[in-house]
Amino acid sequence: MEVTRKNFQEALPLVGASIHKADFLVIDAEFTGLINGRDVTIFDSPQEYYTTLLNGSTDFLLIQYGLSAFCWDEAKKQYTNESYNFYLFPRGRPGPEKMFLCQSSSLDFLSAQGFDFNKLIKEGISYMTEPTETRLRENLTDRQSRSSDKESIMIPEENRSQIEGICKKVREFLDDATAQEMEIDRCNAFIRRLLFQELGTRFKTEAFVESKVLENKNRVLKVTKLKSATDVKDLDTQRKEKEWEEFNEAVGFSHVARMISQSRKLVVGHNMLLDVLHTLNHFFQPLPADYASFKEFTHCMFPRLLDTKYMSSLPPFKDKVNSTVLHHLLATLAEAPFSLPMAESEEGRGYKRADEKLHEAGYDAYITGLCFLAMHAHLARMRGEHCHRVSFMNSLLLKPFINKLFLAKTANQDSPYMNLAGADPTPSRDHVFHLKFPKEWQRNDINQLFSSYGQITVQFLDETSALVGLTRRDLAKTVARAFANSSRITLVPYLKYKALTNKTANPLERREETSEKFAKLCVVLTIVILSVFIYQVLKLLFPDDTVTAEY
Amino acid sequence: MEVTRKNFQEALPLVGASIHKADFLVIDAEFTGLINGRDVTIFDSPQEYYTTLLNGSTDFLLIQYGLSAFCWDEAKKQYTNESYNFYLFPRGRPGPEKMFLCQSSSLDFLSAQGFDFNKLIKEGISYMTEPTETRLRENLTDRQSRSSDKESIMIPEENRSQIEGICKKVREFLDDATAQEMEIDRCNAFIRRLLFQELGTRFKTEAFVESKVLENKNRVLKVTKLKSATDVKDLDTQRKEKEWEEFNEAVGFSHVARMISQSRKLVVGHNMLLDVLHTLNHFFQPLPADYASFKEFTHCMFPRLLDTKYMSSLPPFKDKVNSTVLHHLLATLAEAPFSLPMAESEEGRGYKRADEKLHEAGYDAYITGLCFLAMHAHLARMRGEHCHRVSFMNSLLLKPFINKLFLAKTANQDSPYMNLAGADPTPSRDHVFHLKFPKEWQRNDINQLFSSYGQITVQFLDETSALVGLTRRDLAKTVARAFANSSRITLVPYLKYKALTNKTANPLERREETSEKFAKLCVVLTIVILSVFIYQVLKLLFPDDTVTAEY
Repeated sequence: MEVTRKNFQEALPLVGASIHKADFLVIDAEFTGLINGRDVTIFDSPQEYYTTLLNGSTDFLLIQYGLSAFCWDEAKKQYTNESYNFYLFPRGRPGPEKMFLCQSSSLDFLSAQGFDFNKLIKEGISYMTEPTETRLRENLTDRQSRSSDKESIMIPEENRSQIEGICKKVREFLDDATAQEMEIDRCNAFIRRLLFQELGTRFKTEAFVESKVLENKNRVLKVTKLKSATDVKDLDTQRKEKEWEEFNEAVGFSHVARMISQSRKLVVGHNMLLDVLHTLNHFFQPLPADYASFKEFTHCMFPRLLDTKYMSSLPPFKDKVNSTVLHHLLATLAEAPFSLPMAESEEGRGYKRADEKLHEAGYDAYITGLCFLAMHAHLARMRGEHCHRVSFMNSLLLKPFINKLFLAKTANQDSPYMNLAGADPTPSRDHVFHLKFPKEWQRNDINQLFSSYGQITVQFLDETSALVGLTRRDLAKTVARAFANSSRITLVPYLKYKALTNKTANPLERREETSEKFAKLCVVLTIVILSVFIYQVLKLLFPDDTVTAEY
Repeated sequence: MEVTRKNFQEALPLVGASIHKADFLVIDAEFTGLINGRDVTIFDSPQEYYTTLLNGSTDFLLIQYGLSAFCWDEAKKQYTNESYNFYLFPRGRPGPEKMFLCQSSSLDFLSAQGFDFNKLIKEGISYMTEPTETRLRENLTDRQSRSSDKESIMIPEENRSQIEGICKKVREFLDDATAQEMEIDRCNAFIRRLLFQELGTRFKTEAFVESKVLENKNRVLKVTKLKSATDVKDLDTQRKEKEWEEFNEAVGFSHVARMISQSRKLVVGHNMLLDVLHTLNHFFQPLPADYASFKEFTHCMFPRLLDTKYMSSLPPFKDKVNSTVLHHLLATLAEAPFSLPMAESEEGRGYKRADEKLHEAGYDAYITGLCFLAMHAHLARMRGEHCHRVSFMNSLLLKPFINKLFLAKTANQDSPYMNLAGADPTPSRDHVFHLKFPKEWQRNDINQLFSSYGQITVQFLDETSALVGLTRRDLAKTVARAFANSSRITLVPYLKYKALTNKTANPLERREETSEKFAKLCVVLTIVILSVFIYQVLKLLFPDDTVTAEY
């Protein structure tokens, strides 16, 4: 079911019901970009991975959210899916004005998949974090409780005739029995401000003046005739109610995200780290800088997460799955020895596999659910079980995969996941080196350099440096010794390199520190020398024993 | 005429011809946002204005460019317009990957005007700056001149059966006389890399293997049968030519911007400062941090600029124009004592006023041109002239307006323009103060505070500070004296406040500087004292006249 701001209010109870009755939920999200600046390197630890994404990914916008609820049909002994594809766009007023980053290649990619950017911007549902919601709620309460206390502006000479002309027209409108409303356009913001003040003063009991934004975003002043004295109060109450309605609409999708969290159900995703980061950062709280706090925060909001990309990268799937790209995985799991489950739905409330709407968040969530069920059924079959309902009673089956988020970039090395409910893997980095090489070198020169020490993995950092990992870890010490005195290259063990880069991370600060230390040293030296000097001078002036150096 | 990447190559000669025969050109642009962070204040100098926009506006993207060429029809004695509306989107590959900012309210606004974001991203024309073009050109030349020298990767055990399976299928395809091409899909990037290597080695003389991106951005490997030995060379030459074509397409709209610059013709715009900044920054060179360099650079690229917003804000238009918002201005200039000129065009090459496509860059450029001609004709009539052709022979008419860009935010104060070909206005700021006030204060409390000193202009900076300008400039000293000892507020003259904020603008850097100066002072002091000390010591050791102080 496609959900935009047009049908969001009607859809919300349906979404709530789907979440309530589901065995598990699947999510997927689309963003305006993936990474800005330095990307993760293949040797990063989970903590470094988090820091890199926190700095490089969180300024992008989450623009589509897929939610697929898998509900067990006891009669048919199979799942049905109730899926929703939400277009999300946080518009300003009354929501917060949002500045966000886009990556041209990401938009280009989404466009090629048929993503509708016009629908996104025109009909996207708004959202905000909890702290923003609290702040805006307080502001609105505050503003509504205060009476209008705008300053009175003197009308500048040059605007007087225009203002008088319009006031005359409003007078005519009020005296004319036929019309009930009138609009005043072709005024800039300053003139509107003056008119608000003048019309409000002159026709206080006869007319209600308000600012109105037309479909094309032009602002006009709307003047409404007042029938009775209570009319002003009614119109004012209506305005306030409308402001709360609009505020609630601006909180928008955050309501859904919080329902998912509050359900505490199993939430499945494919390669879901970025989805989780953006979900927390856009609908709950800004992500903490501290990695341990992030893990705690995530586990608290989503106590059971399962990443199908991680699941498919472990035995017994690893050897049978050539590519864990989502639609490749789906195709593989549709063939023997696997089989996809039936999990269709009534028209309009879910997807069918034949819909083939790849990279539409709702559809991707749905096929991720299918992949999960196919792998779950395979595990169950291997244990000789026949019921294919996902159950946490039977937690042994899923336990190895729960709360471990796949780390795509480092997985081929040896740090394949982030463990949200326990200690992360701490793979050795003894076989990894930071290499500095001459600018004219190509990849083959590096291969040549290490040709006696087996296969290597190279990650270029810039034109003259790279990280190099040995496949033959036992040769690490030999390699370090062999290149210790090279004049053309420098080889530094990875951990030492990391320690150095962390130390020099903020050169300005360090320079300042050095300079301060130097200043202090000079002060001390000055004082010492000055004392000696004074002592000498005194000794010259009073060449007897009455002066005693006290230092 | 709408121009996208689909018809850009055909349109380019037409655009060139229009620029060539035009009397003057009009430009307009649409952006993904206006300002990020601190906006200009109403008391900013032109230099501060520039710095604020440089820091706050240049990360947004230029997404639509309107160019309207006004050409004189000597037979009809009137102008025709040849107008182009370009959709611009700098996609990566072979262009540079672009990260850019969006402001949600700006996209919302454009969407309400009917802006087609799907067309933008799917069909937008690419562009790049000159330094980027040079770098990418060198890279491509370099890459094409090098032979492929990728390292050979050992096939990991786990991928061997998949690779062998695919190699077998390719063998079958090569032996099959019917098919000419085959595509290999469902492979991740690593498998594609391995296949490239293996197929290249095993079927070197029989097959040409290349990577291909499908319409939906999926990457597959395309294998083509080779008919003869020269085939490889031909296919390779074709590939190289295609790469240059794609590169040229990626330079894209920059060609048009450079044609406009090279024409050295009068370029008109409405409120055109941001248009000029983005034009320079996206198609020419990154903007310089230094304001004087910026002015020089702009004047060099566009030697004759005219801003109709500035023109309409001066006599004889100022008093007759209530609002200088573009479509308000157009409506005003269509009525007596003004009149809009005829400047229509053949179907498909320009606009008519009745098109009413407000905020489409091409249309806005066109109506800006109409406004310019209407004001120009009015000036000419006032001087008793009858020919309405815009001429630089008759430069007196336009001279007061040339190369002065309107500064919208500060115009109501006294710094209405930036003068690209001379000294900027340097209005006095003696009547302006920086005010710090208690957090609970509202606007009315500030009005109250200044109630004895005439009308004031207030610009809030945050919850406890604002800039306050007196209308009665003669009272500046009185005000400063009156509040000198206030315990609730602090009032600092504007220039003093600016000097203070500039000093503390970068506290880290400044702290370092101070600390360095202090260190230097100490070193000098130490040397002086040490010299005196040594002199004294020497004097003690050799108490005769052989030692002479030489300092």
